[in-house]
Amino acid sequence: MNLPYTVVIGKGAIKELENYRMFTQRIVITEKKMAQLLKPQQYAPDAHILVFKGGEQQKQMKTVVSLAQEMMNLGVDRKSLVIAIGGGVVGDVAGFVASIYMRGIAYIHVPTTLLAMVDSSIGGKTGVDLHEAKNMLGTIYRPRAVISDLRFLLTLPKEEMRNGFAEIIKVALIKDNVLYHAIAKEKEKLLEPSHALLEGIIRRAIKIKLDIVTQDETEQGVRRLLNFGHTVGHAIEAASSYQIKHGTAVAIGMVYAAKLSQREGLLSQQSVTEILELLESMGFPTMLPTAMNKDQLIAGMMHDKKKEHQHIHAVLLKDIGNALIQELPIERWRGVL
Amino acid sequence: MNLPYTVVIGKGAIKELENYRMFTQRIVITEKKMAQLLKPQQYAPDAHILVFKGGEQQKQMKTVVSLAQEMMNLGVDRKSLVIAIGGGVVGDVAGFVASIYMRGIAYIHVPTTLLAMVDSSIGGKTGVDLHEAKNMLGTIYRPRAVISDLRFLLTLPKEEMRNGFAEIIKVALIKDNVLYHAIAKEKEKLLEPSHALLEGIIRRAIKIKLDIVTQDETEQGVRRLLNFGHTVGHAIEAASSYQIKHGTAVAIGMVYAAKLSQREGLLSQQSVTEILELLESMGFPTMLPTAMNKDQLIAGMMHDKKKEHQHIHAVLLKDIGNALIQELPIERWRGVL
Repeated sequence: MNLPYTVVIGKGAIKELENYRMFTQRIVITEKKMAQLLKPQQYAPDAHILVFKGGEQQKQMKTVVSLAQEMMNLGVDRKSLVIAIGGGVVGDVAGFVASIYMRGIAYIHVPTTLLAMVDSSIGGKTGVDLHEAKNMLGTIYRPRAVISDLRFLLTLPKEEMRNGFAEIIKVALIKDNVLYHAIAKEKEKLLEPSHALLEGIIRRAIKIKLDIVTQDETEQGVRRLLNFGHTVGHAIEAASSYQIKHGTAVAIGMVYAAKLSQREGLLSQQSVTEILELLESMGFPTMLPTAMNKDQLIAGMMHDKKKEHQHIHAVLLKDIGNALIQELPIERWRGVL
Repeated sequence: MNLPYTVVIGKGAIKELENYRMFTQRIVITEKKMAQLLKPQQYAPDAHILVFKGGEQQKQMKTVVSLAQEMMNLGVDRKSLVIAIGGGVVGDVAGFVASIYMRGIAYIHVPTTLLAMVDSSIGGKTGVDLHEAKNMLGTIYRPRAVISDLRFLLTLPKEEMRNGFAEIIKVALIKDNVLYHAIAKEKEKLLEPSHALLEGIIRRAIKIKLDIVTQDETEQGVRRLLNFGHTVGHAIEAASSYQIKHGTAVAIGMVYAAKLSQREGLLSQQSVTEILELLESMGFPTMLPTAMNKDQLIAGMMHDKKKEHQHIHAVLLKDIGNALIQELPIERWRGVL
């Protein structure tokens, strides 16, 4: 856990893999779609490539066990390296395998989506779902390195760029108003992967998350700020049976968190309007889908469905770039939804 | 990982569980035999008791997943506590569940065998087998506390006491000649759970292991000394399909490690004879079972079955109470077997 946190960001960064050769074996774990699209063997010609079907439904312990079994059959030992090439699901699964195989072997994540670059690859969270329950089983395991090659973004559909931008806007809102205003100036133009400012914005967003998670690896304090927009966001994802993308759900969640911040007397009405306008201009919905049941959503936000007057931790904004945590009765959320 | 390491040892120590009540829920995990024998609900009346079948064959990921599923159904959250009551298998499985459930919740081990008290409960190793491969999947996870109630030894058959004593003699041989001579003076009388010196001997053995594992939690250096007798020992266990008990296999392994130490010019012949006599007097076999195939054993000791002239780390004795690690060609082991 006390290794330095190496994150390499840039066009062509994947070449860095060549610096990680001192292992008895190198194993690439990726998903089917990625294996076809990216041809991972070109980046690590010596590696064994293990491919699983991919997708959220495969994020289960049986995938972990079957990858571990393949590794054992290949003779993977304590001094081997696992390289995950893919988005969040690949990173979560491969990172989990690496963290428990022989009680933990070296692991590198090469995120291939914007969302994975700025969010899931930073902070060491690994895990799988337990049937429907998201990320119920997992570890916090620091990778040897995270290598974010920005060239991978060039093949990404706009919808995937937007999905990642929700998390970039989130870290800007909680920690960095300069970053926020840089984004607000360019707006939807940033969804174009060749935009000149994109690399700088991604670097800055990664830096913010990195600072937070190295201060608080196990989520006892400041790391909770990263849940801004996620209380409602997670409930929306669940209520939609994960048909609504994470970024979209978080964007809607951030709108309601901003509104609640204003109701609690923390954030100005003008800032709420600004945030709403930015999210709209980036193509995010800013209201709950009309079909969504408010009671179901509230139930999803509660830790303990039996307690009626429960307080939950709410991440609120005092200002753009400045967040705080308050314990609030769940009813306050109902008031803004 | 940086929590203090709390180990409570003594007759009636299980009462300490009362000091660990500040959790939303307490879950006892134990195996069938223990549940019948010890009636764990008397020690934690508020706890939910989860029972699995037990035995080495149940040390599989499917047991972990099914326990986690039961915990989820009970609403176990991040602030709950898992209490393992049992021997090594229960500790390995329950510790693993606790270490990955919601990425890690609080965990206490109450070892009920001598072997678990002096060995597996100390050092945070958790894990399950992957089909036949022992401990292939697991974590290193520090329990909130280890509570060793020596009253549990009173119900233990002599065979189980002996099984634990192999590990006590091991730590004495590698680190503590005073402890060694205390054991050598009493010999087989120590297998009687009511022996007056037993508590002091157990405390000292636990202290030695604790010192080693806190210096080197992830087995990069000094912790490897704990493998004394285990290179051959593990191979014997595997070759017997785990019909030979761990302690017996380690005792035989220590005899050969002592002989190799003498051949390498480190240990005196007189010390080898002394060690052999002590192990014999405690009722351990000191030679390989005649039916055992030496080549199969050598293959089991090698990390990489393809390399013929492989060197492996050998833990050897310079003296009683003083061990060191040397890289030796596998052929040297063949010479003493």
